Amino acid sequence: MFGRSYFCGEVPESSVGEKVTLKGWVQKRRDLGGLIFIDLRDRSGIVQVVFNPDLSKEALETAEKIRNEYVLDVVGTVVAREAGTVNDNLKTGKIEVQAEAVTIINEAKTPPFTISDKTDASEDVRLKYRYLDFRRPVIFETLKMRHQVTKQVRNFLDGEGFLDIETPILTKSTPEGARDYLVPSRVHPGEFYALPQSPQLFKQLLMVGGVERYYQIARCFRDEDLRADRQPEFTQIDIETSFMSQEDIMGMMENMMSQLMKEVKGVEVPKAFPRMTYDEAMSRFGSDKPDTRFGLELVDLSEIVKDSGFKVFASAVAGGGQVKAINVKGAADKYSRKDIDALAEFAAVYGAKGLAWLKVDAEGLKGPIAKFFVEEDTQALVATLEAADGDLLLFVADKKSVVADALGALRQKLGKELGLIDPSLFNFLWVTDWPLLEYDEEEGRYYAAHHPFTMPFREDLEYLDSDPSKVRAQAYDLVLNGYELGGGSLRIFERPIQEKMFSVLGFSPEAAQEQFGFLMNAFEYGTPPHGGIALGLDRLVMLLAGSTNLRDTIAFPKTASASCLLTNAPGEVSEAQLKELNLSLNVNK
Amino acid sequence: MFGRSYFCGEVPESSVGEKVTLKGWVQKRRDLGGLIFIDLRDRSGIVQVVFNPDLSKEALETAEKIRNEYVLDVVGTVVAREAGTVNDNLKTGKIEVQAEAVTIINEAKTPPFTISDKTDASEDVRLKYRYLDFRRPVIFETLKMRHQVTKQVRNFLDGEGFLDIETPILTKSTPEGARDYLVPSRVHPGEFYALPQSPQLFKQLLMVGGVERYYQIARCFRDEDLRADRQPEFTQIDIETSFMSQEDIMGMMENMMSQLMKEVKGVEVPKAFPRMTYDEAMSRFGSDKPDTRFGLELVDLSEIVKDSGFKVFASAVAGGGQVKAINVKGAADKYSRKDIDALAEFAAVYGAKGLAWLKVDAEGLKGPIAKFFVEEDTQALVATLEAADGDLLLFVADKKSVVADALGALRQKLGKELGLIDPSLFNFLWVTDWPLLEYDEEEGRYYAAHHPFTMPFREDLEYLDSDPSKVRAQAYDLVLNGYELGGGSLRIFERPIQEKMFSVLGFSPEAAQEQFGFLMNAFEYGTPPHGGIALGLDRLVMLLAGSTNLRDTIAFPKTASASCLLTNAPGEVSEAQLKELNLSLNVNK
Repeated sequence: MFGRSYFCGEVPESSVGEKVTLKGWVQKRRDLGGLIFIDLRDRSGIVQVVFNPDLSKEALETAEKIRNEYVLDVVGTVVAREAGTVNDNLKTGKIEVQAEAVTIINEAKTPPFTISDKTDASEDVRLKYRYLDFRRPVIFETLKMRHQVTKQVRNFLDGEGFLDIETPILTKSTPEGARDYLVPSRVHPGEFYALPQSPQLFKQLLMVGGVERYYQIARCFRDEDLRADRQPEFTQIDIETSFMSQEDIMGMMENMMSQLMKEVKGVEVPKAFPRMTYDEAMSRFGSDKPDTRFGLELVDLSEIVKDSGFKVFASAVAGGGQVKAINVKGAADKYSRKDIDALAEFAAVYGAKGLAWLKVDAEGLKGPIAKFFVEEDTQALVATLEAADGDLLLFVADKKSVVADALGALRQKLGKELGLIDPSLFNFLWVTDWPLLEYDEEEGRYYAAHHPFTMPFREDLEYLDSDPSKVRAQAYDLVLNGYELGGGSLRIFERPIQEKMFSVLGFSPEAAQEQFGFLMNAFEYGTPPHGGIALGLDRLVMLLAGSTNLRDTIAFPKTASASCLLTNAPGEVSEAQLKELNLSLNVNK
Repeated sequence: MFGRSYFCGEVPESSVGEKVTLKGWVQKRRDLGGLIFIDLRDRSGIVQVVFNPDLSKEALETAEKIRNEYVLDVVGTVVAREAGTVNDNLKTGKIEVQAEAVTIINEAKTPPFTISDKTDASEDVRLKYRYLDFRRPVIFETLKMRHQVTKQVRNFLDGEGFLDIETPILTKSTPEGARDYLVPSRVHPGEFYALPQSPQLFKQLLMVGGVERYYQIARCFRDEDLRADRQPEFTQIDIETSFMSQEDIMGMMENMMSQLMKEVKGVEVPKAFPRMTYDEAMSRFGSDKPDTRFGLELVDLSEIVKDSGFKVFASAVAGGGQVKAINVKGAADKYSRKDIDALAEFAAVYGAKGLAWLKVDAEGLKGPIAKFFVEEDTQALVATLEAADGDLLLFVADKKSVVADALGALRQKLGKELGLIDPSLFNFLWVTDWPLLEYDEEEGRYYAAHHPFTMPFREDLEYLDSDPSKVRAQAYDLVLNGYELGGGSLRIFERPIQEKMFSVLGFSPEAAQEQFGFLMNAFEYGTPPHGGIALGLDRLVMLLAGSTNLRDTIAFPKTASASCLLTNAPGEVSEAQLKELNLSLNVNK
């Protein structure tokens, strides 16, 4: 225990009568009837120390100088508390330490906020004084959980024969790396490294090299604006394997995550996670990462309403779009016309030009558009939506992607608002059969939906020329409670397919060889089939900690407003430094 | 086992009769008497596969197409080898697999070098084809050992209550960060991050925050020329603790390292490592990281020779310098006059203006300078150096630092040359009581010998003004076989001492506050005493692997000549990228 008998929060009842040495911080001091009581805190918790003039006048005199957050060394005897003074909220609440000697190791100014889970400090202040924030149990426990998560992951993967291998952080830059951080090299003037957005290429080269099972808790970088759910540097659990099928990889991840949930959260999740194709997820939930903890599924009504008198619906379907709705059970009374207008505004953010609605009562459908539906259509709507008295029906009619986005977002919002989500649930879900390519209408070209190394379904290869949007990828995303935890895929491991892929993406053969020749060359030297996955550690810890703030899971996060401790934000550099890098600033700051 | 029955190198004798599926690479193919023999290899080792037309004509026909490094899926039956064909050099040498079916999963071009531990390829070629290099068992085993080392370290530290906490890689730049990599921010144009040379400040802030026990396998960066023993990005085992004494920390590291040696190397090292002050190490070995696996210690002869007729010696001592020698036992016959001239040239690299020598025979001392010593001095020299018939005595007379450097380097060279070093030994050593400051004569100022956060001996604080060079640091280096494995110290945790330290280092109070105010401010909020250590992982793995090439311990090292796989070296960036960063190149490449 290195100079202390126990951690404060772990002084056991069995130590009554024992002389102990404790070290820690003053959480609180109370003076009461000539005695001084101090709550002494370290990372393990709190123990009460009593200063009694009968025991040591000197200690009491020192105790009189003590303020909150002073660092103390206390020597004293553990005694049982008297019956009336037992504190059941405290692990050490049955005992206290009668101080015989105390040393002030270091003093403390009054902290700018209270060191407790509940704090009135703004996040900016908390981050500026992050070292005080760490002393709040909720933050410390989150850091500890992060440690436990990576430990559990490491132990699992080690047991499966995976090797933890570090890949470079200073990597080759490419002219296309739009979101790469660039690092000018002093030793090679005029040349730049790039910080990796993922170790993708390195882990594939490890597979070419016969390493077979690689993992890394890998730091990755993206030079983008800060957002609530995004940090410029982030950490992923990065995994790659050879000779394993998609089923093998998914099954292994299910084992890993279910063991993790049990060890870290004490929660049993099913050993096999539900699976859903991308098409099904988009169709039922309007999302490629659906939160399956609640219903409110999207129902396609296009067939029913395509000939209805409501022109908005009919023309949407006629134009190749869709009409879909969600049935908000029993919510008719909860949403006024004004509330629904607000929902429509919300849906508009996702491109919906309008939000049609109906309420259901004993007599049937009510609302401005009710009149457009003949009795047969009304019955079909009620039946398809399983609508009953008191339900609120919300409709979006638009092209497919807008319907999904708007109703999907609305579903998520209503699920939260109406308290439909059980926060104790951890619903894992695989989303599979992703489209390989996405068409960018503005640029008039295809992009890789995941990345250009993703293996297409072999039976879809023939469509790469004729109808690229039809090609499915051997890709799988792991979703937890509506968050994308991570994405994986089998990779292309044959040069001709990789060349074809680059060609579909608009690379000339020369450009493809110039940029990715090292990989395609490697493929020619006996490359095994391989695939893997990358899971976002920051987000995983956030979800396990029951937090919605990604920054709370990171010891020293970056923020737009507070330059955390001044150690963690970009700053100015000197002319001499720039000159040494062969660079100059285009305009002065 | 995910689609295979065993790893190739692990097919057990007990599986004879079993039908197995194997996957791997072709190490070698031999055609013999109508049969084809293939050594099938994966990362675990090799197994022999036999293709016999009696068993499967089709498999044999496929096997005829097979070349080295093809990737195969083999189905066959394990059989015991006939007595005469057992291969005792192979773990699976008692069995072979009779192929019933084989699939060529991927083909391979002829590799540019042989996939085996012994290779004639230059390192440049090996690094260019690093993915083939990984297939050489010696490289794979080194990567595996690196995994085992970090695993062992993590397990040990986890058991001691340390938390693995990630600190930022994008940190604040300072105008003094001469060897920092700088990273321009796209989001904050004209501002730069710096990559950390170590997580020092972050881990101290974690201690201020009451985290108490932190560790990280941390990537660090230094923008310097590549050298054989230095990489621009390197990894350290980074540890920090609160409330622990120097003894506590050293003892804990001894436990960690001795457990590591046992688990990873099967080697028992003493639980307590020898300790030596910096002064003693310099005096006895002429090095602050002595290799204690052999003798050849430096012996101070200044007192004996200061009045001798040999002016070089006498005047060195008179001028405040030293005369020291090493006795190379029994080496008189091994070193001709020409050899000794070569040694003198070697010593000259370290500043020695000359290398005096004597040989010992039955009659006494022989050599050009023997005549300068009267009988009494001769006897004193012989006695002090424990010189005997056949010994070679090598002398350097100069100022203290030159004597240490030159004789220290000579000692190391002779130890190797003469085979005095037992390569099976792992000699750990603590070097303690370092000077806090080093005086730079050119600049006329003091520098921190470790870093400016190192705690001086309290009893030496009074000399900070009067005689800074006299102040000792509470610092400790861990040395293994003549390599510095890492350095640690207790840290300053009181603002006044930290301010004093910056002042001694030449900072104005304003400059100190500007750059390190965040830390000194933090010290005012209840900072516990703390300290730690950082061990070089790359070097540790190199020493445990018995290698002398740091690059072999790193999956994707950087080299000056070969741009490893083109993924790992700096490159050019586009004008558009520079413009976005608000930068321009001063001169075109």
